[in-house]
Amino acid sequence: MSTTEQAASTEAGRVDSLPNGFRFAGVASGIKASGRKDISLIVTDRPAVAAGIYTQNQIVAAPVRLCQSRTPGVNLRAVVTNSGNANACTGEQGIRDAETMCEQVASLVGCDPKDVLVMSTGVIGHMLPMDKVSNGISKAHSELQPSVDAFMDSADAICTTDKSRKVAQGRFTTAEGRTYNVIAMAKGAGMIAPNMATMLAAVMTDAPLSADSAQKVLLDAADGSFNRVSVDGHASTNDTMLMISTGQTEPLRGDNLHALQRTVNEISLHVAKMLVADGEGASHVMAITVTGAESDKQAFVIARTVAASPLVKTAITGGDPNWGRIVSAAGYAEAKIDPPNVSLSICGTTIYDRGTPQPFDEPALSRTMQQRDEVQIELRVGQGPGSANFWASDLTTEYVRFNSEYTT
Amino acid sequence: MSTTEQAASTEAGRVDSLPNGFRFAGVASGIKASGRKDISLIVTDRPAVAAGIYTQNQIVAAPVRLCQSRTPGVNLRAVVTNSGNANACTGEQGIRDAETMCEQVASLVGCDPKDVLVMSTGVIGHMLPMDKVSNGISKAHSELQPSVDAFMDSADAICTTDKSRKVAQGRFTTAEGRTYNVIAMAKGAGMIAPNMATMLAAVMTDAPLSADSAQKVLLDAADGSFNRVSVDGHASTNDTMLMISTGQTEPLRGDNLHALQRTVNEISLHVAKMLVADGEGASHVMAITVTGAESDKQAFVIARTVAASPLVKTAITGGDPNWGRIVSAAGYAEAKIDPPNVSLSICGTTIYDRGTPQPFDEPALSRTMQQRDEVQIELRVGQGPGSANFWASDLTTEYVRFNSEYTT
Repeated sequence: MSTTEQAASTEAGRVDSLPNGFRFAGVASGIKASGRKDISLIVTDRPAVAAGIYTQNQIVAAPVRLCQSRTPGVNLRAVVTNSGNANACTGEQGIRDAETMCEQVASLVGCDPKDVLVMSTGVIGHMLPMDKVSNGISKAHSELQPSVDAFMDSADAICTTDKSRKVAQGRFTTAEGRTYNVIAMAKGAGMIAPNMATMLAAVMTDAPLSADSAQKVLLDAADGSFNRVSVDGHASTNDTMLMISTGQTEPLRGDNLHALQRTVNEISLHVAKMLVADGEGASHVMAITVTGAESDKQAFVIARTVAASPLVKTAITGGDPNWGRIVSAAGYAEAKIDPPNVSLSICGTTIYDRGTPQPFDEPALSRTMQQRDEVQIELRVGQGPGSANFWASDLTTEYVRFNSEYTT
Repeated sequence: MSTTEQAASTEAGRVDSLPNGFRFAGVASGIKASGRKDISLIVTDRPAVAAGIYTQNQIVAAPVRLCQSRTPGVNLRAVVTNSGNANACTGEQGIRDAETMCEQVASLVGCDPKDVLVMSTGVIGHMLPMDKVSNGISKAHSELQPSVDAFMDSADAICTTDKSRKVAQGRFTTAEGRTYNVIAMAKGAGMIAPNMATMLAAVMTDAPLSADSAQKVLLDAADGSFNRVSVDGHASTNDTMLMISTGQTEPLRGDNLHALQRTVNEISLHVAKMLVADGEGASHVMAITVTGAESDKQAFVIARTVAASPLVKTAITGGDPNWGRIVSAAGYAEAKIDPPNVSLSICGTTIYDRGTPQPFDEPALSRTMQQRDEVQIELRVGQGPGSANFWASDLTTEYVRFNSEYTT
């Protein structure tokens, strides 16, 4: 085991030290009727490297269109985010409003508006209340702090229907003995089936990185985390994942870059899984592993298809080891399976082996499924080399109630 | 307007006269713990033309595998169906059980077992209780009648979680003045996202048809009906749609065949829509029309994607004109849309016009949506020539409750 591998560590749900060069604030501006925090501001002390990946939805929200033209870059100074309004499907006025947000931040920070990124999340199709947004940005700027408390405020201010904030931290040490911090924040909790990124996540580090490396690290991290989770299969118009580095020395390469990559991958997976656990109405996380597919890509398609079936989701909700629903969902996935070589275990109990039902203690397995927060579904679909992991929330009456009562 | 077009008529939910040459029975054999009817038998008085289309799921139930090898054909004498057990994922024993069902019917009817078709529906992965099945088949054979009542018993006996039977009738007159009857039965109500056919439907007529024509008529009818409906997006392992003709004279051609096609299409759509209306827990049908796509196929993909979104479904459940959910679902469909030319109306009210939100009376539209059984969603996605219709049920707490309590 190399030095770098020994030294890397990550932790979900907790941040107790920050990377150098960042200040944070999160305030309530009144966009949310509830009075909860809704403007988040992140400012770097010096020009920073920034990478971004964005929704693949053809309907692209105004702030995403702005960010797309500004990453990767090397002069980032600030990220402003509002929650409570997605600024999506808002036409030319929406673009102007996103630009106005960046201009206001730029004048406060003292930089070019092009060096500010903007994210929005909330209801689609309503114009931003720009008076409130503007007051919120001023207030946030006056409260900027390089403190963990301010970071937590900032992480709270990007949330919408989330029950709790989603943060994680990691650190790693280079071969030369320098230690760097990496932190991340994200928000859920509905319209979650990210494709390239999730609505919204930011990874921040003081490790030095070139813009190209930052973009590559971010893509790799998203591929193993946010692109493998789903709450409701509905890809948002606003999905954005950013990576910001304030590092000033020579960009990392080789083993050191690999150590950073591993740290970023781990904390991205931490926050992605928190996002599923806090999926709207979720009572269980389904942790799906598909093996034996013809390729990793085909395994991924099968895992995602199983994860999306409302019949599978409701079986997990009810602690029902109804394996026919899982196997039949794999059967309609747009990927090859080999029915005589299909096997399935749930929470470690094999219940279907090479095409044949196996005897098992159904009440005992049902109790196990009900008690666990995370239900393991291991599906072998043939004898190929492809495998994939996927995490999804189950489907509860609370999900339906919440989303049939949530008004435009 | 030609004579044939004047003479064709169809009716949903009602059958008051039968095509010649069919006898029916539906009995309770005890497969269903509830004691409801679970064995359906259809026998033709003479060798009949039979066509079939089947699930595209890679996991194919035993009875489907048998039927696939027996249609299209010209010597059909009987169709036996059991409900309460799908005989799917049951290995070689399942195949033998399906064959045994056909052999028993053949010996009672006096024909070759190859001239009997078999369908099964119910829970996946349990062996059929063959003693009960066998007693049920004997009883059904003893009760065969060429009567509307017996047809209704037969239609009831194929149901599982359906709240009501799904039947329709049609008739048409040829250019030569001969009138033929067409009737259909189907069942829902969960694991419904047919691809080529639904779990289970049978169309019966006394119009003379070649086997090739029967197969073509059936494919065309399925394409416009069962392939355009969804309850839960979960394609079953047992989907089967059959067409049976007892006609004895020269097979229909030209305008006469066209009149039959139109009649079959209409009654197939009638029963397919009944299947959606009776989707598990459904409180509304979403009638989705997509226009302006690059092709009909692309329009279909967009309509199906909108129909599958749990956020769209729950908005319809709640009578919430939350158009952002509909437009964003179209945006992640795997088909091209043209965002500046996207328009949407719900129940006739335009709420999004060429990329721009429109003012509308939201409480009034919400009341209309809540009151209607069928909510019309008309989505224009660009300026192309492609269009498609799709029907789907909404998503209610009852769906989740039912499917998280339903045990294996």
